Amino acid sequence: MAIRIGILGYGNLGRGIECAIKQNDDLELAAVFTRRDPATVKIQTEGVKVYNVSDVEAHKDEIDVMILCGGSATDLPKQTPEYVKYFNVIDSFDTHAKIPEHFANVDAAAQANGHVGIISVGWDPGMFSLNRLYANAILSEGSDYTFWGKGVSQGHSDAIRRIEGVKDARQYTVPVPEALEKVRNGENPVLSTREKHTRECFVVAEEGADLARIENEIKTMPNYFADYDTTVTFISEEELKANHSGIPHGGSVIRTGVTGWNKENKHVIEYSLKLDSNPEFTSSVLVAYARAAYRMNKEGAKGCKTVFDVAPAYLCKQSGEELRAHLL
Amino acid sequence: MAIRIGILGYGNLGRGIECAIKQNDDLELAAVFTRRDPATVKIQTEGVKVYNVSDVEAHKDEIDVMILCGGSATDLPKQTPEYVKYFNVIDSFDTHAKIPEHFANVDAAAQANGHVGIISVGWDPGMFSLNRLYANAILSEGSDYTFWGKGVSQGHSDAIRRIEGVKDARQYTVPVPEALEKVRNGENPVLSTREKHTRECFVVAEEGADLARIENEIKTMPNYFADYDTTVTFISEEELKANHSGIPHGGSVIRTGVTGWNKENKHVIEYSLKLDSNPEFTSSVLVAYARAAYRMNKEGAKGCKTVFDVAPAYLCKQSGEELRAHLL
Repeated sequence: MAIRIGILGYGNLGRGIECAIKQNDDLELAAVFTRRDPATVKIQTEGVKVYNVSDVEAHKDEIDVMILCGGSATDLPKQTPEYVKYFNVIDSFDTHAKIPEHFANVDAAAQANGHVGIISVGWDPGMFSLNRLYANAILSEGSDYTFWGKGVSQGHSDAIRRIEGVKDARQYTVPVPEALEKVRNGENPVLSTREKHTRECFVVAEEGADLARIENEIKTMPNYFADYDTTVTFISEEELKANHSGIPHGGSVIRTGVTGWNKENKHVIEYSLKLDSNPEFTSSVLVAYARAAYRMNKEGAKGCKTVFDVAPAYLCKQSGEELRAHLL
Repeated sequence: MAIRIGILGYGNLGRGIECAIKQNDDLELAAVFTRRDPATVKIQTEGVKVYNVSDVEAHKDEIDVMILCGGSATDLPKQTPEYVKYFNVIDSFDTHAKIPEHFANVDAAAQANGHVGIISVGWDPGMFSLNRLYANAILSEGSDYTFWGKGVSQGHSDAIRRIEGVKDARQYTVPVPEALEKVRNGENPVLSTREKHTRECFVVAEEGADLARIENEIKTMPNYFADYDTTVTFISEEELKANHSGIPHGGSVIRTGVTGWNKENKHVIEYSLKLDSNPEFTSSVLVAYARAAYRMNKEGAKGCKTVFDVAPAYLCKQSGEELRAHLL
């Protein structure tokens, strides 16, 4: 019997989860929960119902794992500790600084109710974190580097949109090729914020807006742009739609380190992603960890977990025997 | 108290383990075991004893994890099931086709004696296997590619050395750049053996040897070279020593796949290694898994495991709290 997955929140991420479930025949979509009026939410999977989130408790016996697709700022800090009372849950909580607090809250509720909650799943945090951990475990003496992009930063795009005279905008984070090259060569550089990434902004201005002012406001915006070399290109609404409507992303986690009795040998470990769709890739990771949560809970595990606590074999539908024969 | 590690077999790998232990202050080298006369084996760590392998059982209470540094062809199939009776063990068994049989033998002995034996640890099998698994779990529909090199193949170098008139030789396996490029672009190519790797041979011939015959014997050697584009360069013994005495290696595991309701989005996951010293990097992986074996056994785990069965957090000396705060 397939593992029954629930989706809570039907935005970009929720839609990605729905697609990922379709690609995995050991999983099935059981229901979608939304804060909107369910009648207004049209999903793609035939025969699956949409409910209001207020009815979630009534469906606790129909769902093996609930994937929480809310935002990290205000949704997940409340939702994950709440819903882990009724379900095994997965979230993609990505406010790095608040992970310890979130972990503690989810753990208390999960332990008390005998469920598994895996938090901070996705690619960063998630697959990037895993690769930082493995590389640190192997090369005890070395340096870590993370580069993001080329990809769309939703937060930075939003910040531009809030400027007066801006109709729409898309911001790309781009790693500096020379910096990447130095790191890959094992040169172990110390890199400033400006030396690691540039920011490319494509902006649709309102008619008659002062373009020079907009450009200046973007480039001098503290935290978001002031510490970077930023380029601003004004384009038409049609051009934005035609060339900048995707949500690509990616990046690289690199660790360089030394081994040998006199530390005479250098090594470079690199993990890289090139993603056409950030939310769909994130969803594919979440769905694999939903499978793991279900299995671990079946074996008696409970409490809050992260990707660090999940043995890799739990992520695959194949048996240990099949995995050893084909992937080892 | 530090985890007490034993080394069984003191060749390139054993020496690498010794170096890796020195870099990890939660581990200590307890003893080295050799098939040679211990008096003839000089190790680098002060105050640590070398014993003959026949005395190993007498030291079973002094060692928490024994790392087996023998070869896969004849040593490990006997050693791992034997020594897991007395110790938690780690090996780097790398005959892919015989892993299921080796697993079964080690598991039976490990279960019966309450120990953990982690087999096939290193980078391939090992870190490459892990990355194949993670990428397959995430992208259920896609293609896998593994490229090796640029690096020294010991087996191929040995094959050349067996040819009449050859004094010494070093063989490098080199990925074909165009093939790598196509895979990284998500073009999903079907690649023949010849299209994936080339083989570069540096050969020292004996005086007066027939170079044309040697070159022809190399290039037409079945399994080893006949299916590849192979180049043969004759060099002096001094040149071999000066420019080809290292044991570098590396490679890339790449999975490309699609997501989306209509499979409209492409993704590329790549894991790459660039290693100055193949045995020292392998040793660093083995040592991290020795830490894991010790901890898992302390928690009550027993039996044969592979990298697929080990939750990542066990590999690091830091607590779960520290890992979540700094690496997640």
